[in-house]
Amino acid sequence: MVSAQVTFSEISPSEFFYRNRDLAGFSNPARALYMAARELVENSLDACETAGILPEVHVRITPLDPKGESADPRAYVLRVQDNGLGIDPKHAPNAFARVFYGSKFKLRQARGMFGMGGTMAILYGQITTNKPVKITTSVDGKKLHSFSMLIDIQENKPIILSHETVEGDGSTGTSVEVTLQGDFLRASQKIADYFRQTALVNPFANITYIDPQGKPFFYFRGTEAMPSPPQETKPHPHGIDVEAMRRLLRQANEKTLQKLLVANFHRVGERTAQKFLEFARLDPQRDPKSLDNEEVVKLVGAIHKFDEFLAPDASCLSPLGEEILKAGVQKELQPEFLAIELRPPSAYSGFPFVIEVALAYGGKVLQEGKKLFRFANRIPLLYDEANDVAWKVLNEEIDWKNYKIPEHAPIAIITHVCSTKVPYKTVGKEYLADRPELERELKNAVREVLRQLKGHLSRKGSMEMVKRKLNIYGKYLPLIARFSQELAQAKRPPRYRTLIGEQQTSEQAAETAEKAAKLEQPEVETIVPSEKKQESEEIEEKQSTLEEFAS
Amino acid sequence: MVSAQVTFSEISPSEFFYRNRDLAGFSNPARALYMAARELVENSLDACETAGILPEVHVRITPLDPKGESADPRAYVLRVQDNGLGIDPKHAPNAFARVFYGSKFKLRQARGMFGMGGTMAILYGQITTNKPVKITTSVDGKKLHSFSMLIDIQENKPIILSHETVEGDGSTGTSVEVTLQGDFLRASQKIADYFRQTALVNPFANITYIDPQGKPFFYFRGTEAMPSPPQETKPHPHGIDVEAMRRLLRQANEKTLQKLLVANFHRVGERTAQKFLEFARLDPQRDPKSLDNEEVVKLVGAIHKFDEFLAPDASCLSPLGEEILKAGVQKELQPEFLAIELRPPSAYSGFPFVIEVALAYGGKVLQEGKKLFRFANRIPLLYDEANDVAWKVLNEEIDWKNYKIPEHAPIAIITHVCSTKVPYKTVGKEYLADRPELERELKNAVREVLRQLKGHLSRKGSMEMVKRKLNIYGKYLPLIARFSQELAQAKRPPRYRTLIGEQQTSEQAAETAEKAAKLEQPEVETIVPSEKKQESEEIEEKQSTLEEFAS
Repeated sequence: MVSAQVTFSEISPSEFFYRNRDLAGFSNPARALYMAARELVENSLDACETAGILPEVHVRITPLDPKGESADPRAYVLRVQDNGLGIDPKHAPNAFARVFYGSKFKLRQARGMFGMGGTMAILYGQITTNKPVKITTSVDGKKLHSFSMLIDIQENKPIILSHETVEGDGSTGTSVEVTLQGDFLRASQKIADYFRQTALVNPFANITYIDPQGKPFFYFRGTEAMPSPPQETKPHPHGIDVEAMRRLLRQANEKTLQKLLVANFHRVGERTAQKFLEFARLDPQRDPKSLDNEEVVKLVGAIHKFDEFLAPDASCLSPLGEEILKAGVQKELQPEFLAIELRPPSAYSGFPFVIEVALAYGGKVLQEGKKLFRFANRIPLLYDEANDVAWKVLNEEIDWKNYKIPEHAPIAIITHVCSTKVPYKTVGKEYLADRPELERELKNAVREVLRQLKGHLSRKGSMEMVKRKLNIYGKYLPLIARFSQELAQAKRPPRYRTLIGEQQTSEQAAETAEKAAKLEQPEVETIVPSEKKQESEEIEEKQSTLEEFAS
Repeated sequence: MVSAQVTFSEISPSEFFYRNRDLAGFSNPARALYMAARELVENSLDACETAGILPEVHVRITPLDPKGESADPRAYVLRVQDNGLGIDPKHAPNAFARVFYGSKFKLRQARGMFGMGGTMAILYGQITTNKPVKITTSVDGKKLHSFSMLIDIQENKPIILSHETVEGDGSTGTSVEVTLQGDFLRASQKIADYFRQTALVNPFANITYIDPQGKPFFYFRGTEAMPSPPQETKPHPHGIDVEAMRRLLRQANEKTLQKLLVANFHRVGERTAQKFLEFARLDPQRDPKSLDNEEVVKLVGAIHKFDEFLAPDASCLSPLGEEILKAGVQKELQPEFLAIELRPPSAYSGFPFVIEVALAYGGKVLQEGKKLFRFANRIPLLYDEANDVAWKVLNEEIDWKNYKIPEHAPIAIITHVCSTKVPYKTVGKEYLADRPELERELKNAVREVLRQLKGHLSRKGSMEMVKRKLNIYGKYLPLIARFSQELAQAKRPPRYRTLIGEQQTSEQAAETAEKAAKLEQPEVETIVPSEKKQESEEIEEKQSTLEEFAS
């Protein structure tokens, strides 16, 4: 007989993530410093955008002991301040010091997805420095609330050390000050990349960042155009499971199944509901509360088999759009050529998403080689690139030879995925799962911008030939003219200038010469879809389609 | 003035993982079926090994509606039964139907790491089929407890539908029966791989698996040798953070700092404690409860800087060892050549770990090409290979040209990481983080087995030459002998047989011919370290060392 040697215990959510902080990206002092900064900045941007406020975000990282000569890793004070909505003082302690408590648990596009980034930053600070977090917030500009708090990790609840209220200066917003162990030496590059890329897809934000040496970085607002605030949405039928349906039925106020479907699902009207319930062989007039367990399972099964529900619409999403994306890329990358492709809305498992892709080529900022900048709901994703669906598309699914792009060409591909639910594979929000729908849309968008680049490069090639010809004419014609004049003993040389002009016209050089001149300084060119297809590209496009068909 | 549009809510741990089940690997019906089977099998194996019981695990996957012609994805009943310890009926409901409740929250090598796999399987079953889980368990063989349960996801607690007690048949153990939506068509290959690889590193277990078509798979016990049960261990000082130290100091019964360190840390004796506290400038006789916050932070900072703590020992770990690993690989892969390298214990962030690597070459089972089998605490890791540290080592850090291994050679590399804390990057337990210490040990082990394979291949090459020579002699010498006899008109031919024998001796062929004969049937050869180095390998080894130095 064996006696049980097994003991059981329960741990709190804080305790779970305290023990497994690698899962949330807080794996070492370098990555933790980066993660803490990004999580707080993302909360700040969300807090501004939700209310349509143009964001002002100020970030400062200071050594805790500025005079101390101690080397990394060491304690840093990270302070992030915004002009967002502020947080109701009733909720502030829990929002910051309680895992699984937050405002992000809904179907709405947001940077935060798991509702725990800020809390993880505070938790990491506490377990490495034992210093309380300081939160200052105002929702009305009249009263400013300051909290000093620790987390009771075992109980998953805030320990409020102090709560003071002073008069506000009229402005709303929140500031968070965390003291944490960091390794700035190893994190500085990622943090710099993070801010630069954040500025790229949030050009409507003013961001300042002061590094531990006191060096300031300014990312100025490049446009006042803000994407419309994302809206909360109802679930799409294809995203529903038995548990969700059971909850719906239990809480339903609607008296019939048909009304329940119309009231609670995204894009389900009376006619669709009727049609579906016929398909599912359920009486539309039936009382939702009368369904037994078996019937609920059958209902959900039928929902997933019914293919006449309208696809989720993306009106609840807030993609960047051409103007903002263009402004961001121009500001940060100053390319010679810029192509943008916005895909129509699509959906996976009932969650709507939109893909936006930009391609930047040449200019003074980009280095040789192919570079991928990944974004999801307007946050840059910097780690674990090779695990991401966008990397897979670029490196495994695009046939680069098709686009005749020179090797080592200076190219940046910017991908942006917007969704009410970004399919992150980890709580640390670093890479997206290769859902087939996402993969397909990314592939289509990347192909389109590459086609545009191919067109640009081929135009650029013929322009350069024209330019070279003109140079030759320009060099030799005057000499020939002078010889002719001398030979003919004429008073004036022949009007060779007109000749050059004619040559130009015959090759449409008047226009191209202007463009060629422009090419000498890096300048941005965007192409509208109607202009962009040339014959050779169409052939190439047909090839791609065949390729797709064969694969 | 902007009014707050933000609403806050708290969700339970069940609710969090219900919403984010991708994080735990339950992303679609195919993967979920695989994950559910593996999580339950791993719980079963843990429940046997903890008590040193030779595991008998029976797994059955049956369609819920066997007569129905419905296609995948559809509902399956997954049943996993073991002869382990059983679960105390007081704890069984929470252990299975409550997230963050379990027996795995300690520093002990176990397959389970997050204490939530079984609960996730049950949760997934419930949200896709709404069927209760059935648990039957006995800890003493006298009473058999049967539960039928659902999870209250919003409250994170079990809903017990029924609890019956009947007389037991004398055996202990647990059986779990979950009904869940699965896609067997897409999952079958992974599930088959999973069982085969589980058998490979658990050759002391009897595992039977009956697939949905009723086809049985038997993985018979290949050895009765079981690894010693893993032991719980105290934390190593280098794994401690401020939070953990604060808890220790608060709960301490010891009256002095020195005693506290000795009593609560792994491999800290009185002398080390004394030395360390001098280094940290703290009085060894000081009352642990008298330290203020600042001092706790300083104490932990000093711990991480003090480099005279003994490395964690691995006596708490339970690696497979040469015998079991050999038995497993022979049983499943039947290679022509097998090399095994067990690295000495090492540690990362205070957690001890041991790396075991096997290399199998040739034989009838292995196909052409390089294959990687990854294991951690005796579980196979099948998904997301390219994200794993072992893949990185094999593909980015080993210079294969050094080992003169023919392209497309049939090779399998088996890596096994044992630790009290496996550095998984996701809750789904599929790949390990590239901690530098892990990477280094893996690299060393892989190099060693490759060196052995190189030796084997070069011996095999020279043996084949000897054999070919002997064939020629054997063919022509009798003829020459007969001609000589006729020419000399002698009564007997010359004693050419002795000649062949001499030739053999001169090339040490007596031994090699025997080996060469063996080579014709696939048979396993293992080489003990003392025999394995030949001159050419030593040169190669020096090169590797230089290479390492240069990198």
